Amino acid sequence: MRTANGKLLAVLDAFTRDRPRLTLSEIARSVGVPLSTAHRLVAELTAWGGLERDEDGGYRIGLRVWERGSLAPRALGLREAALPFMEDLYEVTHENVQLAVREGHEVLFVERFAARGAVTVLTQVGGRFALAPTGVGLVLLAHAPAEVQESVLAAPQTRYTPHTVVDPVQLRGLLAQVRRGGHAVSDRQVTDDAVSVAAPVRQRGSVVAALSIVVRGGSAAVVRPYAPGVMAAARGISRALSC
Amino acid sequence: MRTANGKLLAVLDAFTRDRPRLTLSEIARSVGVPLSTAHRLVAELTAWGGLERDEDGGYRIGLRVWERGSLAPRALGLREAALPFMEDLYEVTHENVQLAVREGHEVLFVERFAARGAVTVLTQVGGRFALAPTGVGLVLLAHAPAEVQESVLAAPQTRYTPHTVVDPVQLRGLLAQVRRGGHAVSDRQVTDDAVSVAAPVRQRGSVVAALSIVVRGGSAAVVRPYAPGVMAAARGISRALSC
Repeated sequence: MRTANGKLLAVLDAFTRDRPRLTLSEIARSVGVPLSTAHRLVAELTAWGGLERDEDGGYRIGLRVWERGSLAPRALGLREAALPFMEDLYEVTHENVQLAVREGHEVLFVERFAARGAVTVLTQVGGRFALAPTGVGLVLLAHAPAEVQESVLAAPQTRYTPHTVVDPVQLRGLLAQVRRGGHAVSDRQVTDDAVSVAAPVRQRGSVVAALSIVVRGGSAAVVRPYAPGVMAAARGISRALSC
Repeated sequence: MRTANGKLLAVLDAFTRDRPRLTLSEIARSVGVPLSTAHRLVAELTAWGGLERDEDGGYRIGLRVWERGSLAPRALGLREAALPFMEDLYEVTHENVQLAVREGHEVLFVERFAARGAVTVLTQVGGRFALAPTGVGLVLLAHAPAEVQESVLAAPQTRYTPHTVVDPVQLRGLLAQVRRGGHAVSDRQVTDDAVSVAAPVRQRGSVVAALSIVVRGGSAAVVRPYAPGVMAAARGISRALSC
């Protein structure tokens, strides 16, 4: 039995990237409450600014949630420290530059720059993705607590392309390489034409985020020249976070 | 008398830019509830991911709030459309490029690029500021509903610098100029050495945001050469929003 507060939070959770706009009855169905309860919850959230109603009577997440969320240190605090270094990387490469953190067993992207001509990537700011196939995810997984690693390695991996590493033994090898080399390479594991290199961002010794660059290419060799730049920028962010 | 849900939302509101970390007793005091109630509310929010507890027992806003908030069309949806145009402006100028929306009687900044050498500005992503003294605020105010304009013009204006326009008659003249000229200039109204030019971003005919560039300078003449670029980029964003 959910508490009143639990239901309120469940209303916010009903909205997703795929369904960013919901009607009152869709909200009621998703939360599992009668329409009258949904109506009251939605009214409370709308009055607060947590939901916004459009002309056609649909609801969307309100700017107030984003504004409150911008106070999260792992979102904009991290981003603020990272931005100058990401801009530098972007300017010298004109490729996709991404910053991500781990949320449970997934990657959450907190910032991304993409040049118009750069290779298409599946990620979006505020969006999640699997850990194992992405460069940033490999870095975050390599430095995650053992129980997180074991649980990810035990679960079946989605095969996004023929290059996606799905074998747990091979994956374990990749993670050891990441820890040894200080960076991760994902070779066409997410899409057929994109290769990425990622490096860890540390705060007080712990890996708190990962920075990556994603370029168009058909082999890991394409992305290797970018590794020193990404590693140096990730160190710069780590230093900025410790100030 | 606040509802249980109202108290939960009040916990999120207790966190601000100036006080992003709060102890349990600070939260209880701010929400106006006994410690035991605060404890229960904080436990519910923490379990959801809306608060995160640090090593010293303090609480901060959790990444989950930011993640939910990233679904707000007026935050990241707008940002996604604006980003390529902001990047172009940034690359050709290496100055501060800002994107803002109106929230009630204030400006809320949703994106900002700033070069390392660019003039210092007081704004932060996720931060608010007064409408009248900023370039983006003048644009948003010029296109706000009449009741918003009247209420802002009726309130006393903070004088940030000797150049801040605080006279309502003069301010009204500025707003008319913005509507006529399609852009706003704020000449050292916020800090002594910064001048900005801003232009409206429209969606289905309505002004939904404002784009600006802030440069170092001692007169409006310094920023005028940037006006066509800012106006063109704002139009580009408007077009991208209509796709």
